[in-house]
Amino acid sequence: MSILDSLAAIVGPGNVIADPAGLAPYLAEERGLYRGAARGVVRPGSTAEVSEVVKVCADAGIPMVPQGGNTGLCGGGVPSEDGGSVVISSERLTRIRAVDPVDFTLTAEAGCVLATLQQAAAAADCLFPLSLGAEGSCRIGGNISTNAGGTNVLRYGNTRDLVLGLEVVLSDGSVWNGLKRLRKDNTGYALQHLFIGAEGTLGVVTACVLKLFPRPRETATALVALSDLEAALPLFARARAASGDSVTACELIPRLGLELGLRHVPGVRDPFAAPHPWMLLLELSSSRPGGLRQALEDVLGDAFADGLAADAVLAESESQRAGFWRIREAIPEAQKKEGGSIKHDVAVATSRVPEMIRRCTSAVEAAMPGVRVVPFGHLGDGNTHFNLTQPIGADKTAFLARWAEMNRIVHDIVVEMEGSISAEHGIGRLKVDELAHYKPGVDLELMRRVKEALDPRGLMNPGKILRPGPGRP
Amino acid sequence: MSILDSLAAIVGPGNVIADPAGLAPYLAEERGLYRGAARGVVRPGSTAEVSEVVKVCADAGIPMVPQGGNTGLCGGGVPSEDGGSVVISSERLTRIRAVDPVDFTLTAEAGCVLATLQQAAAAADCLFPLSLGAEGSCRIGGNISTNAGGTNVLRYGNTRDLVLGLEVVLSDGSVWNGLKRLRKDNTGYALQHLFIGAEGTLGVVTACVLKLFPRPRETATALVALSDLEAALPLFARARAASGDSVTACELIPRLGLELGLRHVPGVRDPFAAPHPWMLLLELSSSRPGGLRQALEDVLGDAFADGLAADAVLAESESQRAGFWRIREAIPEAQKKEGGSIKHDVAVATSRVPEMIRRCTSAVEAAMPGVRVVPFGHLGDGNTHFNLTQPIGADKTAFLARWAEMNRIVHDIVVEMEGSISAEHGIGRLKVDELAHYKPGVDLELMRRVKEALDPRGLMNPGKILRPGPGRP
Repeated sequence: MSILDSLAAIVGPGNVIADPAGLAPYLAEERGLYRGAARGVVRPGSTAEVSEVVKVCADAGIPMVPQGGNTGLCGGGVPSEDGGSVVISSERLTRIRAVDPVDFTLTAEAGCVLATLQQAAAAADCLFPLSLGAEGSCRIGGNISTNAGGTNVLRYGNTRDLVLGLEVVLSDGSVWNGLKRLRKDNTGYALQHLFIGAEGTLGVVTACVLKLFPRPRETATALVALSDLEAALPLFARARAASGDSVTACELIPRLGLELGLRHVPGVRDPFAAPHPWMLLLELSSSRPGGLRQALEDVLGDAFADGLAADAVLAESESQRAGFWRIREAIPEAQKKEGGSIKHDVAVATSRVPEMIRRCTSAVEAAMPGVRVVPFGHLGDGNTHFNLTQPIGADKTAFLARWAEMNRIVHDIVVEMEGSISAEHGIGRLKVDELAHYKPGVDLELMRRVKEALDPRGLMNPGKILRPGPGRP
Repeated sequence: MSILDSLAAIVGPGNVIADPAGLAPYLAEERGLYRGAARGVVRPGSTAEVSEVVKVCADAGIPMVPQGGNTGLCGGGVPSEDGGSVVISSERLTRIRAVDPVDFTLTAEAGCVLATLQQAAAAADCLFPLSLGAEGSCRIGGNISTNAGGTNVLRYGNTRDLVLGLEVVLSDGSVWNGLKRLRKDNTGYALQHLFIGAEGTLGVVTACVLKLFPRPRETATALVALSDLEAALPLFARARAASGDSVTACELIPRLGLELGLRHVPGVRDPFAAPHPWMLLLELSSSRPGGLRQALEDVLGDAFADGLAADAVLAESESQRAGFWRIREAIPEAQKKEGGSIKHDVAVATSRVPEMIRRCTSAVEAAMPGVRVVPFGHLGDGNTHFNLTQPIGADKTAFLARWAEMNRIVHDIVVEMEGSISAEHGIGRLKVDELAHYKPGVDLELMRRVKEALDPRGLMNPGKILRPGPGRP
């Protein structure tokens, strides 16, 4: 019996895909940056089926690629080109097993779409705070496997911080049931943290228990024109303190980001009379209504008095608030329409973000005169999308050919500043070589030992995060 | 050269202790429950010295026991009786390397006393929220190694959630530098989470980067007499929602806990006119002043209207607030004075705490007529200290002889309810057999593989958490 026949015997013939047209969506992500090949795609409908699938593949020595919504930006869910693997799709694992507004927990299978979980939480008058661009199609198992970030990390943490329990099918097909709804459990090693952010290289996440929170009832949003980049830091710290630690977004927007949006994206408006080099989108939200807007006004009043803010607009309506967010969210799309972009998803200590931006800007401008830097994103987390737009009139292909060179310049500075070369997007296929280049040997050896311990034959999503070494998975 | 001479060559002769009187405090904890023996105690003064110490011990095949303030309740820091190990004390690693109120981070060495770190944070107008009974003498390395809980977990999380970065000396003496001040870093496996809560069995924590928070500027505290035990749950959920998720304590107090305090502990007062079977200590705090007390009053008003609360007292002064906390904190001391106590540190999903308390109470009362249950603690975390006080007039020794029997009854119910047999105290020596009894084989095998991967020779704190198996560390 072929491997696909064996898999069909487990999940039913309709849930094994092997024809080229059917396979295509699973072998490339939407931007077409990563393309792979596979023996087939299997779509198990239960944890028990995932377990059987993994056992059959493991027995046959066939590599497996767990895949969620296939929206990852580093290619972690796309199989390699060799065509030897089987893709295990979570798209049929879509049951929400429980929503408990007393425990503030939600128990769901790995294939649930993020937006569906947000809605299920809202229906119980709760908030599931994970929120990111792909939320309409990404799946929670993928969010967990990449430890997704997004716009609410500041207040609620990364996906890692939102997970109370996990269920994982291990590389031999056995099921680890860590699906606990416990806020405290000090009974040995923190196994769930091994799988969160492991990009499917240690096992297949099949279900999870997530933390919920009280639903915010008041939101106060301002777009602040900063006197200079450095002013962002005290402004952020003051807003944290004054708001009862209710800053839920602190997003940096450079002038060029707004200008590109005005040029390319419908609905983007400049709320200021004069141009400002740096803006900060500050949002506070809380389930305790009353006082939040006043707190924001007080912070801004002090910021004017102290020369931190040059101008500011408070959102007076939901549509004005949406307009501010539109400016921020339009940046990637606007950059795309402006030509080629070379991207970096870096983090440093929050207090060092301005220094990082200035140093990286000088360095890339020196290496490529005319390059236009658009550093934007989650300042409060220390996470900057340090993206480069091609020089005006440059050839896109020639510009993009310098991707690795620009990466090296930016990543060298970030690593020297004790930062991260992948703050929220993970490693996947894209940054395997960068990781091997930058991670100290001690780190790589520790990671490799973990990989060997949990996936000794190297069958789980091989080639992602770590390059297989001689004699090592 | 003997091992102690080799160690003295690294740390200086004054920092190697081998005489019985000098050794004594390191070989037993203050309650005298665990006693061990050791070749000696070594007190390195830097990470480099820890590294050299571990190398020398590893080369000689000598087991090592990392020890902080020696305040752990499960004996994780106490060496075994065989006398073959060396205790590595963190008490000279007491430098605070940095406090950054813009980053909201504090970088410190493992031997810093918790209260010292709280004070350093306060001096920068910040809060380091970890708070527990032993804070005047426990050391942060021990808090990290046991993933300590305490009274602020509800709002700020366990120690695990408060750690941004770690520095660890591995079992071969190499140094893993994970001392990053990053809020986001998705570059491979989450190595730091391996060491947090590992009780020194995977390496020696030498330094850490901790999260700080804005300092609370308003606190509202109430002692609520519940209409019944189940009323605690909606009251807690409502307080979370109404306060902007600012509930920082939600502690359950049973009538007997208060009565024992009144009998044995100076300063304990009953604020209620009538006796109530269950009380809840609710505390809200926030760095955004104004409105918190009103929010608490509103919650309590609704609770009266809905029949959840029978009575309630709001603290009108700091001394009244301290009085409420005195009731809660006096319980362990009062139990000790009342005679023998058999203790459980268990957790279930928050929504199941009342069910757990009722089931366990019935079961232990059936097994031991006259036993007096005193279930108290962190209801909001689902964490109950389900302690048993001896029957009136019973023989203390005979009562304590039934410790294991009572544990089995309580732990059977808790595990059946998908709970934890050690919510915040860890495993140490005390619960090694309980862990082996209750953890599924898949969990134990995963833990063992992690142990083998990081400490293949089984030299790091052997016999803690896991029992060494045949041919395995």
